[in-house]
Order: sequence, then structure tokens, then C-alpha cells
Amino acid sequence: MARTTGSTSVETGQRLRRAAVSLFARHGYAAVSMRQIAAETGVQVGALYNHTTDKQSLLFDLLSDHMDDLMAALDQVVLPADPVLALEAFTRFHLRYHAERPDAVFIAYMELRNLTPENFMQVESQRRAYEARLEEILRRGKAGGVMHVADVKLACLAIIALLTGVTTWFRPAGRLSQAEVEDIYWDMTRRLVDA
Amino acid sequence: MARTTGSTSVETGQRLRRAAVSLFARHGYAAVSMRQIAAETGVQVGALYNHTTDKQSLLFDLLSDHMDDLMAALDQVVLPADPVLALEAFTRFHLRYHAERPDAVFIAYMELRNLTPENFMQVESQRRAYEARLEEILRRGKAGGVMHVADVKLACLAIIALLTGVTTWFRPAGRLSQAEVEDIYWDMTRRLVDA
Repeated sequence: MARTTGSTSVETGQRLRRAAVSLFARHGYAAVSMRQIAAETGVQVGALYNHTTDKQSLLFDLLSDHMDDLMAALDQVVLPADPVLALEAFTRFHLRYHAERPDAVFIAYMELRNLTPENFMQVESQRRAYEARLEEILRRGKAGGVMHVADVKLACLAIIALLTGVTTWFRPAGRLSQAEVEDIYWDMTRRLVDA
Repeated sequence: MARTTGSTSVETGQRLRRAAVSLFARHGYAAVSMRQIAAETGVQVGALYNHTTDKQSLLFDLLSDHMDDLMAALDQVVLPADPVLALEAFTRFHLRYHAERPDAVFIAYMELRNLTPENFMQVESQRRAYEARLEEILRRGKAGGVMHVADVKLACLAIIALLTGVTTWFRPAGRLSQAEVEDIYWDMTRRLVDA
């Protein structure tokens, strides 16, 4: 089947991003050259520049799009009006989304230091927008007297660190299934805010 | 004051380790050369090899010694027989120890991937020995009926992720003092296990 240049270009762009995520996760941004990224993508170096202006733009796009995709996926989740049910929906969403993307999570954390200050500020503000969703749930739970939250900001950071930590050790073939891990983590998250 | 060669050598070794931690944290292991480490240490490259055989040994020593130092510091903490008081002592210790060493924590997590399999197994077993201390407290709390712990292993990993996460955002000049952060994190940790 003949493919248009447009769809081939989109596919190359996707392959490029997967290659960059994988190489950055394995070796770190500073140690990876555009030449290696081209080789892993299966194109000539020159062809990369149809998709990105330089390595910094590529990193920024990966981290910024990671946050955009996360927000778009969260927007697909129906968060119940009841704050405890909303916290459960958020917890299960966050666990699943991150468990499926350990490399992206790893570089989203590790490579922040390699963004220019301007790009860092942009990604930071996207991260804060995501955290604001959880903070809103905690604030409602606290206001409604159905959660104990001493400090909304700290509870938000604690819950996100606790849940995201699963990506560092979870293996589908491990002792517990993803569903069991999810249930146990929801139980701990709920208790953390006395819900 | 004249210094012996021995004490000079110890000082150079300490400067070398500080230089390596700082460079690895900023640029990543793979992107840093022994030449850069020598320049940051303030010695000739050749002099580095009085202290380490190669970059892999240096990384292994940093990560392995990080775990040894952590265990030695924990051994200095009196952990009360009461499991809830022991959990509080562990929580406050872990927070303080890690908050003071954000670079070392960052590379201890990020550079595991750059260890040889043999070196990785060694550091992993040191990490597990540390986690075993917390698991022991949780197991006693559960057995004594003073904590709700659905899964000791997962509660241990969750608590460590939650507490270590503080290193990614805590700044001494921030909204909350270290003592306030510590109190709020202890409150959340306690609730997480219903203690």
C-alpha cells in the first residue's frame, strides 16, 4: 500500500520519539548524540531535522508532551463529585498510567536538570497544573470533613511520590498483579488522608 | 602546618568523591569523563588512579558507600521497642538524612542502571537490608495490632518513596521549615498504617 509522505513523516516522528526516550532512559540525555538517535530511529541524521531543531527541543518536546498526554488522559477519567471516590479514581488512574511508561517517567524526573531554564519553567507549570487536580480533590475532601489533610500541598506531593514510586519496582510477572498492587496502594492512600 | 601524605591522600579521596557526586548529578555518569572528575577534584588524571581503578569502580563505591553510610547512621538511632515510636524515629531519621544529601539520593536512584550486573546486585542487597529495618518495624506493628498493614513489603516501599520524595522539592528557604515538614510527613506516615 502506498503511503503518503505525511503519514510516513508522522510514523518517523513517533519512531524518533520512542528512540529518544529509550536512549535517554538508558544512557542519559548528555551522553546521547543526535547521530545515535538517528541510528536507533533508522534514518540519516539529516532527516531528524525535519522533526526537531536540536537535542534540547527534542528533550523539551518529550517532557512537555509527556505532561500534555498525562493531562489529556486524566481529562478522560470521570472524577466523581464525592471527594473520596474522586481520590480513588485519581489514584487508580495515576498508578496505571505511570506503570505503563516507566522509561518516560524516569526521564521526566531525571532529565529536568537538562532543560534550559525557560523550558524547565514550562514543564514545571504543566506539572503544577496536574498536581492542582489532586490538590483540588484533597481541598474538597478537607472542606467537606471527609479527609484529614494537614497541608494540601504536602499531601499532594506525598501521594504522587508514593504512587509514582511503583514504577521503580513493579514487574507484571512479580508476586502481585497490577490489580492487587492498585488495591493495596488505594488502601494506603485512603488511610493517609483518613478517608 | 605540615600534613602527612596519608592525610593528604584521604582529603584528595574525599574531594574526588564530592567532585564525582556533583558531576554525575549534574551531567549523568555516562557523560562525565575521568578527565573532568580530575579537573573538578583539582588533581592530574593520573592521580585519580591512586584512589580508584576506573569510573565504574568509582560509581560503585559512591553508591555502595552511600548505603553503608545510611545503615551506619541508622545504627546510631535508638529505635524504641514500641513499633509506633520506632516508626516515628525511622521516619524522622530517613527524612533528615536524605534531605541533607539530595545529590547523593539522586544518583543513588538514577545511576543504578549504569552499574555492572554484579555491582548492581551488591547495591540492591544493601538497599534491601535497609528496607528490612523498616519492614521489621511494620511487621511488629502489625503483629501487635497497633498498625494496619495489608502488605509489609508494599507499605515499606510506599513509605520510603513518600519520604524520599521530599528531596526533590524541599528547600531550606521555602514556605515550611524542615521541622514542620517532618511533623507533617510523620503525621501522614502514621495515618498510612493507621497507627
